[in-house]
Amino acid sequence: MISWLDVYHVFSATVPLYVAMILGYLSAKHLNIFSLEQCAGINKFVAKFSIPLLSFQVISQNNPFKMSPRLILSDILQKILAFVVLAVVLRFWHPTGGRGGKLGWIITGLSVSVLPNTLILGIPILSAIDGDAAVNILVQIVVLQSLIWYNILLFLFEINAARKITSSGASIEHRGNDNEEADIEQEPKEEVAIVRTRSPGTGKILLKAWQKLIINPNTYATLFGLVWATLHFRLGWKLPEMIGKSVHMISDGGLGMAMFSLGLFMASQSSIIACGTKMAIITMVLKFVLGPALMVASAFSIRLRSTLFRVTILQAALPQGIVPFVFAKEYNVNPEIASTGVIFGMLISLPITLAYYFVLDL
Amino acid sequence: MISWLDVYHVFSATVPLYVAMILGYLSAKHLNIFSLEQCAGINKFVAKFSIPLLSFQVISQNNPFKMSPRLILSDILQKILAFVVLAVVLRFWHPTGGRGGKLGWIITGLSVSVLPNTLILGIPILSAIDGDAAVNILVQIVVLQSLIWYNILLFLFEINAARKITSSGASIEHRGNDNEEADIEQEPKEEVAIVRTRSPGTGKILLKAWQKLIINPNTYATLFGLVWATLHFRLGWKLPEMIGKSVHMISDGGLGMAMFSLGLFMASQSSIIACGTKMAIITMVLKFVLGPALMVASAFSIRLRSTLFRVTILQAALPQGIVPFVFAKEYNVNPEIASTGVIFGMLISLPITLAYYFVLDL
Repeated sequence: MISWLDVYHVFSATVPLYVAMILGYLSAKHLNIFSLEQCAGINKFVAKFSIPLLSFQVISQNNPFKMSPRLILSDILQKILAFVVLAVVLRFWHPTGGRGGKLGWIITGLSVSVLPNTLILGIPILSAIDGDAAVNILVQIVVLQSLIWYNILLFLFEINAARKITSSGASIEHRGNDNEEADIEQEPKEEVAIVRTRSPGTGKILLKAWQKLIINPNTYATLFGLVWATLHFRLGWKLPEMIGKSVHMISDGGLGMAMFSLGLFMASQSSIIACGTKMAIITMVLKFVLGPALMVASAFSIRLRSTLFRVTILQAALPQGIVPFVFAKEYNVNPEIASTGVIFGMLISLPITLAYYFVLDL
Repeated sequence: MISWLDVYHVFSATVPLYVAMILGYLSAKHLNIFSLEQCAGINKFVAKFSIPLLSFQVISQNNPFKMSPRLILSDILQKILAFVVLAVVLRFWHPTGGRGGKLGWIITGLSVSVLPNTLILGIPILSAIDGDAAVNILVQIVVLQSLIWYNILLFLFEINAARKITSSGASIEHRGNDNEEADIEQEPKEEVAIVRTRSPGTGKILLKAWQKLIINPNTYATLFGLVWATLHFRLGWKLPEMIGKSVHMISDGGLGMAMFSLGLFMASQSSIIACGTKMAIITMVLKFVLGPALMVASAFSIRLRSTLFRVTILQAALPQGIVPFVFAKEYNVNPEIASTGVIFGMLISLPITLAYYFVLDL
């Protein structure tokens, strides 16, 4: 059972995140310490350096030969289901506003619904419920996030960015002027053309996105992490102290800075619920209903049992992770939704997780 | 005696700093990841948040009732001597170039000569030589740096900044135009007027600097640190886990980011020895000859003995600290000298410290 001490541990994991965020918020809103461009610099540092090196740490410390194939399969299946559901919904429903078009909405939907905060909140919350067995499962989920999902997310962000550049380039060619209005008018038409039929530029866009992905520090950090984990757990190689310390030197502050950056972003918005109340409710439904529901479907199909079943569902109901916000801000694809997801998700995380726990316990 | 293992420990403390710096250098120089304004944002985060919270940590964990009064006195005396020597030299010698006028040169001189890197390099180097006794002494020196010297340094930076604003304000008033050339021409004249005689604006300048100092997070962080240390070591109060974690969340990445920021700054300069060879030599002389020599004079006058004497001299010969660079960059007062001091100081730190060690051992 969960004791008051466990609740205290969860609080003491959550409160510092909020402190860092509030510090960022105050420093931009009331103290005017940072300009918008400077805020972008801080976020970029987290996106390009802290997160990749944190991923390296997580991946390199995990034994890839002891991962559960069933867990991996059910995690992959949940993400595929989420992609399909989001794509189908977006065929019939067109959210107003938002930057990044339909692919942008899919990216945001995936970030919100199936990429929970397993590392920072998941481990204290779920180890209070299921002890070391939960930690073991969560670490594997974290590794899959860093190794597979963040890289795929970055690839989707790059495709989206490459498509925008290509389409605005095309619109300039078409019209023969550089009027900004032309771009805005042109974009929906271009987009419709890409959803309906594969435009001849698809190969070019994918190539461009791939070229950007392979110079992203995250790609290398995760790859090196996997290579090192293999060498360490198969051949017993040890990471030299200097390299370990170098990695920590950059990654240690990442979490605090990510939350600080979230606070800076909030300060730049007109309202704390930056995406509006309606979108905030949709976000919460995606997170706390769709995400866990897809995981239940996936876990049933793969026939997960007992603790593995319970922990897999519970982690899917954890609030949204911070990394997807950092990426959304970096690529400017609906960051106001990702930020609302993190902020409100964390506020209601404990009661929601407990509710799922009691339901699964019946 | 110093073993090869000790040397390895010192290297493993130094190499990660260089890795973070090189990463910053490459990301700005060759990858063009950060704009100048974004670099300034990263440096500002370190100056305004990471360093103050790191200072809080250091001060709050030190028992103020067990500090050595003789050590405190000799530390204060060394700084006063340095100020006097620098002021006298600058009466007769006018360095060319540089931003920040005569006071700027004094600030830079103090940063280079008497504010060594006691925390990061000092503790591994000197604990290898003198064990726990050295650590005890060094921690006290680190506390004095954070509590007294960094605050005085910030006050001097603010005076310098306020003087610049006042003098350029005066020049605009005088000339009745806002021509930029007017500012540049006017400044040296204004400065001469302030060195010769106390201008009527001195009170106003001090007031303005004071007003800036009391809204600087560093002032509060060091003050709270001292108050908390008193409560902890006298009344046995314990820092709540949440507050401790919140402080760590922001301060943890400070060191890596400070070095990263140094690398970013290097990339913005035309040469790696940003201040020129002549000034680099002067910097090294100030650091490795003037600083320790003044400490010897001070330690003799206060009659320090045995280990206390040796460690106090040795720490004065440690390379320049990183914090003064971060401040120099933030206030734009000769950052190219402070950066050269850090980079080259660290490269030659170990042989220089060993040389002092053997001399003192005779």
